[in-house]
Amino acid sequence: MKKTTQLKNMIQSDQLGFLMEAHNGLSAKIVQNTGFKGIWASGLSISAALGVRDNNEASWTQVLEVIEFMSDATDIPILLDGDTGYGNFNNMRRLVRKLEQRGIAGVCIEDKLFPKTNSFIDGEAQPLADMNEFCGKIKAAKDAQTDPDFVVVARVEAFIAGWGLEEALRRAEAYRLAGADAILMHSKKSNALEIKAFMEAWGNRHPVIIVPTKYYSTPTEQFREWGVSTVIWANHNVRSAITAMEKISERIFEDESLVNVEGTVASVSHIFELQGASELKEAEKKYLPTYGQEINAIILA
Amino acid sequence: MKKTTQLKNMIQSDQLGFLMEAHNGLSAKIVQNTGFKGIWASGLSISAALGVRDNNEASWTQVLEVIEFMSDATDIPILLDGDTGYGNFNNMRRLVRKLEQRGIAGVCIEDKLFPKTNSFIDGEAQPLADMNEFCGKIKAAKDAQTDPDFVVVARVEAFIAGWGLEEALRRAEAYRLAGADAILMHSKKSNALEIKAFMEAWGNRHPVIIVPTKYYSTPTEQFREWGVSTVIWANHNVRSAITAMEKISERIFEDESLVNVEGTVASVSHIFELQGASELKEAEKKYLPTYGQEINAIILA
Amino acid sequence: MKKTTQLKNMIQSDQLGFLMEAHNGLSAKIVQNTGFKGIWASGLSISAALGVRDNNEASWTQVLEVIEFMSDATDIPILLDGDTGYGNFNNMRRLVRKLEQRGIAGVCIEDKLFPKTNSFIDGEAQPLADMNEFCGKIKAAKDAQTDPDFVVVARVEAFIAGWGLEEALRRAEAYRLAGADAILMHSKKSNALEIKAFMEAWGNRHPVIIVPTKYYSTPTEQFREWGVSTVIWANHNVRSAITAMEKISERIFEDESLVNVEGTVASVSHIFELQGASELKEAEKKYLPTYGQEINAIILA
Amino acid sequence: MKKTTQLKNMIQSDQLGFLMEAHNGLSAKIVQNTGFKGIWASGLSISAALGVRDNNEASWTQVLEVIEFMSDATDIPILLDGDTGYGNFNNMRRLVRKLEQRGIAGVCIEDKLFPKTNSFIDGEAQPLADMNEFCGKIKAAKDAQTDPDFVVVARVEAFIAGWGLEEALRRAEAYRLAGADAILMHSKKSNALEIKAFMEAWGNRHPVIIVPTKYYSTPTEQFREWGVSTVIWANHNVRSAITAMEKISERIFEDESLVNVEGTVASVSHIFELQGASELKEAEKKYLPTYGQEINAIILA
Repeated sequence: MKKTTQLKNMIQSDQLGFLMEAHNGLSAKIVQNTGFKGIWASGLSISAALGVRDNNEASWTQVLEVIEFMSDATDIPILLDGDTGYGNFNNMRRLVRKLEQRGIAGVCIEDKLFPKTNSFIDGEAQPLADMNEFCGKIKAAKDAQTDPDFVVVARVEAFIAGWGLEEALRRAEAYRLAGADAILMHSKKSNALEIKAFMEAWGNRHPVIIVPTKYYSTPTEQFREWGVSTVIWANHNVRSAITAMEKISERIFEDESLVNVEGTVASVSHIFELQGASELKEAEKKYLPTYGQEINAIILA
Repeated sequence: MKKTTQLKNMIQSDQLGFLMEAHNGLSAKIVQNTGFKGIWASGLSISAALGVRDNNEASWTQVLEVIEFMSDATDIPILLDGDTGYGNFNNMRRLVRKLEQRGIAGVCIEDKLFPKTNSFIDGEAQPLADMNEFCGKIKAAKDAQTDPDFVVVARVEAFIAGWGLEEALRRAEAYRLAGADAILMHSKKSNALEIKAFMEAWGNRHPVIIVPTKYYSTPTEQFREWGVSTVIWANHNVRSAITAMEKISERIFEDESLVNVEGTVASVSHIFELQGASELKEAEKKYLPTYGQEINAIILA
Repeated sequence: MKKTTQLKNMIQSDQLGFLMEAHNGLSAKIVQNTGFKGIWASGLSISAALGVRDNNEASWTQVLEVIEFMSDATDIPILLDGDTGYGNFNNMRRLVRKLEQRGIAGVCIEDKLFPKTNSFIDGEAQPLADMNEFCGKIKAAKDAQTDPDFVVVARVEAFIAGWGLEEALRRAEAYRLAGADAILMHSKKSNALEIKAFMEAWGNRHPVIIVPTKYYSTPTEQFREWGVSTVIWANHNVRSAITAMEKISERIFEDESLVNVEGTVASVSHIFELQGASELKEAEKKYLPTYGQEINAIILA
Repeated sequence: MKKTTQLKNMIQSDQLGFLMEAHNGLSAKIVQNTGFKGIWASGLSISAALGVRDNNEASWTQVLEVIEFMSDATDIPILLDGDTGYGNFNNMRRLVRKLEQRGIAGVCIEDKLFPKTNSFIDGEAQPLADMNEFCGKIKAAKDAQTDPDFVVVARVEAFIAGWGLEEALRRAEAYRLAGADAILMHSKKSNALEIKAFMEAWGNRHPVIIVPTKYYSTPTEQFREWGVSTVIWANHNVRSAITAMEKISERIFEDESLVNVEGTVASVSHIFELQGASELKEAEKKYLPTYGQEINAIILA
């Protein structure tokens, strides 16, 4: 099944779906190997992994290159955290075409201004995009896609910016009418009350995606009861990698030796396995002359 | 001090130096924060993180982009694992100029053929580069650099390819005479006997760098005794990240919840810290008008 | 019709087809506007336009970016001059997948060594690739394509390297059997005798493509008589652009004024037209709020 | 002399200076060969050459790659037409650091909104940037540069947007005080009356750069009298290339032959010359083993 169709089905399904964060080809592969049915290409994680801030310091084509590697390494769908679409409706159209080419299943855009700031940094000081302008961006994205199953998710930052339920509903409905395939309702509260209130008022109008990074202690069963479509575990791979790398670097620095770490980390062979080294070995048998690599030139005429 | 000078000093110093692997801006920053004085931009780790094989599947400019992010995120020197130089002497010259522009302190090239295969995969089946051709590549690199402290390391794969000490010495000496700033003598044995034999025969002729990935249990004190210049911990950050991400992904997949993982991973605030979010906040005070971000347009004439 | 199918049809057609060189999005658009049915993305022209040599100084992903812009700007098929495939069979497989994603209709690879040298520079001093290794590369390319109409052309450099008809035939046949969709038989003679001899011996076995850069005075009617499939006009757009830019630069430099050149060059409006400015203007009406661009922020909560 | 110093000197000199447009490495080389002392890396020309619109459809890193090739191909300074700086002050800081690394001598930014529209398309309908926000961007750029001679030019779009002299002066003065090294005063009138009025009111306060694309018939002597610092011939290489390529493509398409065009275009040898092929040939003698290219592998151990 096409990646786009996989993602669309997940979002439209009655079953609660899960997207797990990845930020490069390696973490994407791990997410797939674990059994997840989809990947969240997090803007925060990708920028963090690159070593820049989550403020559009990496260009949109640099992000594109990251997710192309991620897409090449996996067979499950990727939903890109596409910030504000990296500009206006015209940049958005271009983005959608480039994503389709690279096998990305969908994109989520948020109603903030370019360049963006992460929602967890002074969220209330961040202005929202004009609602009508954002609806135009959604329409442009939907008109630009050539695969009918490509998914466009509209992320509502009304709660983040401190506007409350009414504005959240007003925008969610406007984005739904503009053609969004799902609404991502974001909240930075440590409980899920905003989300619960929204879900009750929203009903089953259209699929809703949530990101419980801050309200992580809310039982997933409640999300099911409220009718949430999909849950995004938004940044935990990069966060676990940070902790692990800080520990191992510290240990090696202190020890000036590998002897205490060798058994605690993945083997080099496991890296080769994740990279698909065996497929290449088989392919060499098929495509390289049997007399070996060493003869790759013939004498001159 | 310039990054190039830092690296040159480390390599020429009487003190044993250490380079710790990184594969993106994030891990590079962590290496620096830990206290290391230099970074090994590992070809294996970078390709693994991207999600491709260590066989020059990523183009050399894609690798360049990775290490530019790494260089931007750090102040300590980076030595690039430059495979075979990605072509002939002419590609090598171009590479050196591009590395200098991006603030990379040095490059290590190995005497194998393009496209390369990782040394730990069927090393003995891999042909070596013609020695004289490789010497020309070293000369070209040294002539191309504009900063006299830029470091060119010649990696000898003679042991890896099964040639033994004599060939290792012959090549090391040729590369030294060709202008290499240091010799990286590689071995895939689980003990350091090849390295020891080489060091004894080599004497103090020229700085020697080693990579004890396979002979990890050899005490570092022995490397000091033998007169090794620098030790590279070559791939342990990516290996620790793999283990951590596999565990966290598995846990979240099984639990369908974050509640058991929240306390075990770096906080979102710590990500912001690694990204330097506070510097931007200060800069906004300095460079944005005091009436706030929201007004970024004036009415039309 | 798919671009790949267009190209395949042209090559398999009884009618003599023509591919015109382009080297960026602009020249590609001009080729299409002129009426040509296909584009030759020349390695020489692309490298020249970038400002580097035709020796794989630009990385393969830099070339990929150039032709992605070309493909986005046009609806007619593009055949990429893919040099040697930028490495071995594995690099070739990766290249084919990337080309398909970007809407490139086919790729031509030549039986030389990486990094390549232009065939018109000391052609006879250039070694050929091992024939069996090259056949493996062709097979790998054909196995890698997902669109059955994607075209792989095998370019035979036997005449260029001074080997004569027998070797040219031997290689052409081997490449045909390996799966190439067409043979590009290259010659640097100022007459077409090598080509004629080859065509007579070859018969109608398989489509043959030629590049009459050096034997430009041979009447095209003869190519038809010999049964040539497709003629490539390989570098004339970049050559005409060079002449024009040298003249206009010289004139403006001498005059210190535009007054003598304004009427001789394309108008700024014509640039806008080539860029498709009017489509964007229409799209703005559709996707931007009617109250104008100027309001793109709302007040804070 | 450093490229930055060359550009700074030109702008601060009493002599009228000239910058000639280029849009890729090839045209940049031609500009240099003609005798010009500096290059204008035109946003319009670069986007046109890529095949996209002058509305930030190419990402800022794609533009960066274009000008890196231009810089590598030349020794004279390049002033980049940097649109709006591709975002806010933070994107601007990042841009400046990237430009310095690539040997670009300076950047010109304009007081419009991202994504931009070309000034000659409905200029009066385009809103201007908030003046104070733009001053912050200039300050951030100047603070970000590490080379004191790197040049930041502030382009005033007040005339273009229909605001008149007073606003043009107000903004020019604000940008001067914010640290801009020169003011680029733009006008789309077919006569130079706006420019003349500005120059008279401005006096010799600070260097002024102009772009007489529309008022091309105004004698250059007048620019000298008014005290203009530098004139930019902004897009004439790409315009001449368009005309030439349209003609040659048409001719070859109609003729189905090269016979009438061969003598009218640059020779293939001239391409090689512009690419610097002879330098490589010399370098091969120096860096390649004398027994030739063909032996690039040795037998296995």
